[in-house]
Amino acid sequence: MLTLAGHPVSDLIEQYGSPLSIMDEADFRSQARAFATEFAGWTVYYAGKAFLCRTIAGWVNQEGLHLDVCSGGELAVALSAGFPPERIELHGNNKSIEELETAIDSGVSRIVVDCVEEIDRIEHLAAARNTQVPVLVRVTTGVEAHTHEYIATSHEDQKFGFSLHSGQAWSALMACHERPHLKLTGLHSHIGSQIFDVEGFQVAAARVMDLLARFRTATGSDLDEVNLGGGFGIAYTAQDSPMSPAQLHQALSRIIDQERRTHGLGPLRLSIEPGRAIVGRAGVALYTVGSVKPVDIGEGQQRAYVAVDGGMSDNIRTALYHAEYSAVLANRVSSAAPMLSRVVGKHCESGDILVHDVYLPSDIGAGDLVAVPASGAYARSLSSNYNHITRPAVVAVRSGRARPMLRRETLADLMALDIEP
Amino acid sequence: MLTLAGHPVSDLIEQYGSPLSIMDEADFRSQARAFATEFAGWTVYYAGKAFLCRTIAGWVNQEGLHLDVCSGGELAVALSAGFPPERIELHGNNKSIEELETAIDSGVSRIVVDCVEEIDRIEHLAAARNTQVPVLVRVTTGVEAHTHEYIATSHEDQKFGFSLHSGQAWSALMACHERPHLKLTGLHSHIGSQIFDVEGFQVAAARVMDLLARFRTATGSDLDEVNLGGGFGIAYTAQDSPMSPAQLHQALSRIIDQERRTHGLGPLRLSIEPGRAIVGRAGVALYTVGSVKPVDIGEGQQRAYVAVDGGMSDNIRTALYHAEYSAVLANRVSSAAPMLSRVVGKHCESGDILVHDVYLPSDIGAGDLVAVPASGAYARSLSSNYNHITRPAVVAVRSGRARPMLRRETLADLMALDIEP
Repeated sequence: MLTLAGHPVSDLIEQYGSPLSIMDEADFRSQARAFATEFAGWTVYYAGKAFLCRTIAGWVNQEGLHLDVCSGGELAVALSAGFPPERIELHGNNKSIEELETAIDSGVSRIVVDCVEEIDRIEHLAAARNTQVPVLVRVTTGVEAHTHEYIATSHEDQKFGFSLHSGQAWSALMACHERPHLKLTGLHSHIGSQIFDVEGFQVAAARVMDLLARFRTATGSDLDEVNLGGGFGIAYTAQDSPMSPAQLHQALSRIIDQERRTHGLGPLRLSIEPGRAIVGRAGVALYTVGSVKPVDIGEGQQRAYVAVDGGMSDNIRTALYHAEYSAVLANRVSSAAPMLSRVVGKHCESGDILVHDVYLPSDIGAGDLVAVPASGAYARSLSSNYNHITRPAVVAVRSGRARPMLRRETLADLMALDIEP
Repeated sequence: MLTLAGHPVSDLIEQYGSPLSIMDEADFRSQARAFATEFAGWTVYYAGKAFLCRTIAGWVNQEGLHLDVCSGGELAVALSAGFPPERIELHGNNKSIEELETAIDSGVSRIVVDCVEEIDRIEHLAAARNTQVPVLVRVTTGVEAHTHEYIATSHEDQKFGFSLHSGQAWSALMACHERPHLKLTGLHSHIGSQIFDVEGFQVAAARVMDLLARFRTATGSDLDEVNLGGGFGIAYTAQDSPMSPAQLHQALSRIIDQERRTHGLGPLRLSIEPGRAIVGRAGVALYTVGSVKPVDIGEGQQRAYVAVDGGMSDNIRTALYHAEYSAVLANRVSSAAPMLSRVVGKHCESGDILVHDVYLPSDIGAGDLVAVPASGAYARSLSSNYNHITRPAVVAVRSGRARPMLRRETLADLMALDIEP
């Protein structure tokens, strides 16, 4: 029987119902602490979009990390949890006036500017409050990284940031520099997600440093802050080999030092935004099997469709990104032969797949529990009520203690928005 | 200025906020009525998974349609709206015991059996209640249809139903036939989604009829009910040319008659399950533009990223299925030159795209309204709170009246599940 932080999974299911999301507090905290320790001297923002609730905000705060929020909703959760606004950074390609107002009034430490319209919006709001707002300019460097590959072009066909190549980044820097109520502190660059190599960061850093050097030449002012964004990969399956925070720090420091010297720049204030790399591994999804259906897949092969009581409503990543997860039989040990299996949900859609290909014991059946590890990031965040399925509870576990962070959604919750005809 | 059922869109936005989902009651009802009228003598189930709330359930009821639900949640919404259970059918590849219990106790008219485990579950529950439960057996025919294509194989690599080729369908039929508390009425076959041709239905119907004929030969009993499922396409863009309910009825009737005679079968009770085909066109999403960002896409071309105040949280279909939508400037007429545009949301993710490619007037800017037509199906159903973005209100409009069916979600709603640490 699988245990999580010492809790047998069937005890957890019995107490909190099925399906269930488990968050291992010690694992989360140890990853957060590893980033804080290894990246000492840097600012480490936990990227709240990976998964945020008040308990998580509390852990991030207690471990001394900063917090990256990308909406008024995430900011509200953080503030409601008592997270110090002076350690919060606001992202977003299209922030509303209300979001900017709340951020400024609550005193967040950085706003990452992402479009020209926003420059005037912030200037206007800051002027009305007779204050100065610290901003970074988000630059698109033409580098796009994913897993073991990156591409570097002169342009980037995406909605975020200001393009270096087109001169938009330069114009944005000048505009922010000139606005009296904006305090331009540096640049932000984010190059991708689930990245295992640092080559892409090297190219992006070189381009960012070049821009900093040109800015100094043109204005005589130094911008000394560089945020390299996030995107650090984790192991979803045994095939993945992510870098540890220590390895990452060593590699990124080397790159920054090298590029900084190449461009004759002084010391920099550096930051990163790990989200998945902190919360991904700490999350485990537990499901109860309802049916097992063997299906011919040609050439004499069979695949067992193992259907569980959740699915694309609680984890759409497999359907959305063709993400790969593993799955294990969790409530018992089986010596039955392994069987090619596909873990699917209970949604009325053939794409409702949680794990495409995994070997599960051939005696798995209704009532068994299945665990999907490394599901802490972007699963709950993207969860829906598709087919009017309610969302599972999320329970924080540590040795000797289990406590719900998010309670199970009920049919009454679902109906709360429904106005009687 | 675009008007919806006579309501200027800016009035709707002013009254109910932005972004906003609009449902045109007359359009919904006219499509529902067209199916009811053209398919007179058939049973037409509205597939609630496309979009369901109490108001919609009421409309479906008033127009005399039946209702297909695929979860206990959808069933609860229907019952709460006073929908007659004797016109409800329950779907689902992995129904829970609780869902089956509620369905049986409330007296739904059909349960579509989807796995072997379920046969015993229903038998057990029905026996305990000393009742008989009418069931259809869902058969996978090896036919998979989408848009203008279909493939027909001997097996189907998916989670739904019982495979014809492997003999699972035959075994399921026999099992249901033999269980004293199951009343086997016929077969169910669903072949795909967003289908524009009926060729796939022809092949599937032939296989289903063959099974019915074999069943009669083996048992001496006639099964006279065939549910052809749904999947009827709608026009998302000007390139799509869906069949009208009248054309669909004519084509499907011809197929059924032909295959019925080929297999020497008597009259059949027929049913279909349109969802998207009834609610898709009736829905219009309204957004407010926050920023417009021109991006080089190579070869001297530019694309304008038009960022609105919603995105993949209120409509994930573009990201999930590469779905195609159109978009129009909604609050004014512009004679500005058209500009290649991409309508994107405000989420912290580069895949947050609503409309990949559309020409919008080059003078579009912050504060303008954009309408995305034909977004009534599977948008709200799949909606999330990604990035802690709250879900928009859904407002039913008809001539002279606008009324929210689902109120706008608030930050307090979002936090309702969050248990204070």
